[in-house]
Parts: sequence; structure tokens; C-alpha cells
Amino acid sequence: MNFKNFYSAHKEKINQELGKFLNIKTRQAKKISKDCEKLTEAVKEFTLRGRSKRIRALLVILGYAGFGGRNGREIIKAASFIELIHSYLLIHDDIIDQDDLRRGKPTMHKYFEHSVKSKLSEDKSRLFGVSMGILAGDLCCSLGYEILMKAKFSDKAKTRAIEELDNLIFNVIQGEALDVFAQTSKQTSNKEIYNIYKYKTARYSFEQPLRIGGILAGAGESDLNKLSKFAIPLGIAFQIQDDLLGLLGEEKTIGKPAGSDLREGKKTMALSLALERCNSKERKIIQSVLGGKDIDLKDINRVRDIARKTGALRFCGELIRDYISKSKKALNKIDNFDATARSLLIELADYISNREY
Amino acid sequence: MNFKNFYSAHKEKINQELGKFLNIKTRQAKKISKDCEKLTEAVKEFTLRGRSKRIRALLVILGYAGFGGRNGREIIKAASFIELIHSYLLIHDDIIDQDDLRRGKPTMHKYFEHSVKSKLSEDKSRLFGVSMGILAGDLCCSLGYEILMKAKFSDKAKTRAIEELDNLIFNVIQGEALDVFAQTSKQTSNKEIYNIYKYKTARYSFEQPLRIGGILAGAGESDLNKLSKFAIPLGIAFQIQDDLLGLLGEEKTIGKPAGSDLREGKKTMALSLALERCNSKERKIIQSVLGGKDIDLKDINRVRDIARKTGALRFCGELIRDYISKSKKALNKIDNFDATARSLLIELADYISNREY
Repeated sequence: MNFKNFYSAHKEKINQELGKFLNIKTRQAKKISKDCEKLTEAVKEFTLRGRSKRIRALLVILGYAGFGGRNGREIIKAASFIELIHSYLLIHDDIIDQDDLRRGKPTMHKYFEHSVKSKLSEDKSRLFGVSMGILAGDLCCSLGYEILMKAKFSDKAKTRAIEELDNLIFNVIQGEALDVFAQTSKQTSNKEIYNIYKYKTARYSFEQPLRIGGILAGAGESDLNKLSKFAIPLGIAFQIQDDLLGLLGEEKTIGKPAGSDLREGKKTMALSLALERCNSKERKIIQSVLGGKDIDLKDINRVRDIARKTGALRFCGELIRDYISKSKKALNKIDNFDATARSLLIELADYISNREY
Repeated sequence: MNFKNFYSAHKEKINQELGKFLNIKTRQAKKISKDCEKLTEAVKEFTLRGRSKRIRALLVILGYAGFGGRNGREIIKAASFIELIHSYLLIHDDIIDQDDLRRGKPTMHKYFEHSVKSKLSEDKSRLFGVSMGILAGDLCCSLGYEILMKAKFSDKAKTRAIEELDNLIFNVIQGEALDVFAQTSKQTSNKEIYNIYKYKTARYSFEQPLRIGGILAGAGESDLNKLSKFAIPLGIAFQIQDDLLGLLGEEKTIGKPAGSDLREGKKTMALSLALERCNSKERKIIQSVLGGKDIDLKDINRVRDIARKTGALRFCGELIRDYISKSKKALNKIDNFDATARSLLIELADYISNREY
């Protein structure tokens, strides 16, 4: 089985599981009131939007299969939890980043803001939107815990999985806080960017989904730690690459306007390396473009040129290759890992290092 | 033992447990970065503020003791979870209500807003405050789950407790959503207010803490349901009384400016009953005062008079007595409930029906 087949076979099952669970919760909310139904319905619509890739849920399944888990039905249920946790974080993140669109549709707070615009003032509509966004995110969080608890695994496996989920949220919130703090400071060090990549992406999106899968299969601490050594460099490589694509990609390949990250003032490894290596004139150019709301393609290209000329891009490419190679080596050191799961993860790692969209 | 002795003996232990746990988490955050330490430190300061009553944690302990739980040390640890969940909800609620003060100090989002005021614009400081408030609340949520998972109870008891905690959060979020929706509509029905009281207060602050205590003692579903029949009317009586005090109390007894609830436009049972029974002239008076930012004592007194004259106050008093009596009867029907825990809960119920501050 190759990753593509595995992916399409499981993605649909995850979506079905989420749909079934969220239908039950919507009916429960409806019993309280029409308004509660609206909130839960909005959470369902958001979580089931077509563009969600479900990669995190697939990693839970691969961590489980890797350590010999065989209950294909229950692991689909359990793995769905991470997509609700992901909704939770995205909904809150969109308030923090003041984003209007998510997966091609209004963000949660914007959806609720629009819903009352005709009857409330602009200020009150905005507050209503943010309030409902906060609550919708909070709701997703408890629903994520709930769907995990409802899967039929042993109480021991589930309590361990919950402890890991607590860690996951602790880590990702720290990563987001780092990111929010970084927005308030002019200069962000490579170490700080590495930490944001590690906590906001590598641990949350790669390490802990895999570990939770492993835990549900009954893996021991030492095996889980080996899995972490595979997952963290992979996640960091993924984020460096993702930010590179954000810097270099065109709208049709990256799905958002070219230079969006520059416009948002996002601190990335490529940019940080360029700033480290450029001369003072070039530094001024980068700083004037970064966070500028009305920058155009010419500005974007000037930053791209500096990143290229200083070798920052090439160095990012080297970093990605190093992290991927470290990652694959670590995976090969786990003797008792299922061969199919291993080859799917290797394929994923290769895909990440080469992906262009 | 009377409630007062029980209360003071346990409150300090809960605070110590919370302090110990949050110190560990702050050290963990510090290992990531100084900024992460700041966030976790702020969560600790907020949670340990002196004015917190810890009533919810005491109810967990009483639910546990009532059903024969005897591990006094571990139940203190487990019960602390609810105070972190409470921090979580308060921090988010303060953003929603745009409150500046909590427990006599700045709310979480205001604290972070102030911290960057000297270096960022007003808009950016406000966004930073709200962002960090959202994240600080989210952090408290996962910490609440974590401290519960770390207490030494059986995995079976803990998985049941987590499922109940998931329900608790589901319910309280629905209650808060009802409240937020109610702010957007001119008229709120008694049924809607009852639902807000039930979900935002009775289930969250009374029923589910008691049930989680019972679960940790190994109580069965049927006993827990009997406990719910005690807790829900008690919680509703508490909230009707709390809102009455908000309407009638003076600053020195209620700890906030007289008429604050009127100023905030809060929908309460007393007001809803008054609106139902008054004539059209009186209705206009109430509606003109409700939500008015610059109302004075004369306005407040006019509303108080209408509430009195229409019999709304008397009817609220009757409702409270009815709910309390229903509640006490339900408690007395649980045969296998520990006598000391029962008498403490009866004392609490009597206190709630008579309290004046």
C-alpha cells in the first residue's frame, strides 16, 4: 500500500466518524435550545469543511498500526479526536490572527459576526463574533476529549492517552504564546523560531498524534521516545518547507495570495537567516516589507532575491534535508515497528522534503 | 463538624495543591522560554488570587465523602481540577463580558494588555491582551484535565470522571452561549433564563462537581442521578438569590457597585418576572434603565420599586424556598450517603437560601 491509497482510504472514514459524532452532539444541543443547536451546528460545519487534510488523524492511526494495533474500527474513532482539537486551535488562532477566511469559508468568529450584523451595531457584532468564536473553540476542545474517551480501548490506555493529550495542548499553547510574543518584538532569534516550529508544529502536529496512536496500541515509554525522535525533526523540516513555500510560492500553488506571510509579518526561518546574512541596506528592505499591508509583487520579489542571494534559501534546503535524514534514521532504529506503517511514514517524510505545494 | 470548619480546613489544602502543581508547570514552561514562563506564571497568580471561594472543589470533596470515599489526600488533588477549569471559564468570560477586574485585580486579558501598552499601539495592545487571554484560558483547561489525571485513583474511575468533565464543559459552554445570545435579543423568556441558570450555574457549579466526587468514590449511575436531583434545584436557587442580591444589595455587601447587573443589562429571573407583571409605563422604565451605562441610584431604586410592587421579589423568594426544599428532600432520599457529608450539604443549602451577601 502506498501513502496515497492509505490516505484516501482513511480520510473518508475519519470524516464519517466526525460527522456521526457531531450529529449526535448537535441533537443534544438542540434539546437545550435553538441557539445551542446553532453553535454546535457551526462547529460541525467548520470541522467537516472539505479542505481539511486529516494528516494528524492519519498519524494517530500510523502510530497505532506501527506498534501492532489491530482494532481498525476503534482507532478511527479515537483518531478523530485530533481533528476536533485542531478545530479548537484553529478557531482561537483565527481570532488571534484576525483572519477572515479558513478553508475557503468565513472563520468562526467572522461567521457569527456576520450573522448579527443586520440587527446589532458594528462594535457589538464584532464582540458577538469573538465571543461565539471563543466558545465554539472551547466546545471543540471538550468534544475532542469526549470522542477519544468514547473509543473502546482499555481504561489504562485511555488515561495514558489523555495525559499525552494534556501535554499536547500544553505544548501547542506554549508554541502559540511564543508566536504571539514574537509579533510584539522587532527581532526574533533563530532559537525562538526553532521553538515556535517545535512547539506549534512538530510536537503538536507530528510527535503527539503518533505517540497517542502508539499509546493506544500499548507501546512502552522507550518506544514512544524513539518515535518522538522520528517525529520532531520531521515536523521541523515540514514547517521550514511550509514557510519556504509561503515565501516563494504563487497563489495558484499555495492557495493564498503570494507573499501573505510577509504581509502578516510572520517570522520564519528563511527570513531570519536572510536577516542574519544580509547587509544593512538589505535589512532595511526586508524590514520595510515585513508586515506591510499594501506590499506588491515587486516588494515580495526584492525579499525573495535577498533570501536567495544571501544563501538563506540554500541553507533552509540543507536544514530540511538534514532534519529529514535524521528523522528517517530514527524511525529505522525502532526494531519492533510494523513494516507497512514504517514504509508509509518514510514515504510521508520523502514527500515533505520534496513537496512543492 | 460544621460547614465553616470543614470549609476553612479544606480551602487551604486546595490552595496548596494548586500552588504546588502550578509551580511545577511554571518551571516546565520556563525551560521552553522566558515568555512561556510569563504566561504560566500569570495563570498561577490568577488561580491563586485570595478571593476565590473554592466552593466547587469542596463539592467534589463532599460528593466523594458522601459515597464513602476515604482517600483524603488524593481527593484534594483531584478536586483542585475544578478550580483550574473555573479559571479557564472566568478568563474567557471576562473577554466576552469586557470586564476589567476579577477578584479585585486586572482580568487576564487586561493584565497582558497593560504589559505591552508602553511599546505597542492601543489597538495592538488590546489584541495582544485578548490573544494572551484566550491562550491563558486554554492553558488552564488542559491543566485542569492534567491535575485530575495525576491523582491516584483507578483508571476506571478516572476515565468516568473525564467523561463527566467533558459533559460539564459541554453544558457550561452551552449555558454561556445562551447568555451571549440573550445579550443580542431585547426580550428573554423565563424559560431561557431558567436554562442559563441551569447550564451556566446549576450543572456546572453544583451538579457536576458533586457527581465527579461521587464517581471517584465509585458511586453507581443511579446514585449519581439522585445526587443530580439534589444539586440542580440547589444551583438554581443559588443563582436566583445571587441575582436578587445583585439587584438589591449595596456595594459594601455585594463587593461590586450597586446596580452593576442592571448597568450590564444582565437578564435575571427577578427582572423577567417584573417585566411580565408590570404595566407598560413601568416596562418602559425598566427597559430604559437596563444596559444604561450612566444610570444612578435613583434609576436603580425605580427598578427595585417596580420589582417589589409587582410581587416579582416575593415570587423569587418563594421560588428559592421551593427549590431548596425540593433539593433537601432529594438529598434525604439517598440512603447510602455519608451522614456527615449529608449534614454539611444541608447546611450549605440552608445557607444559600438565607445568605445576604
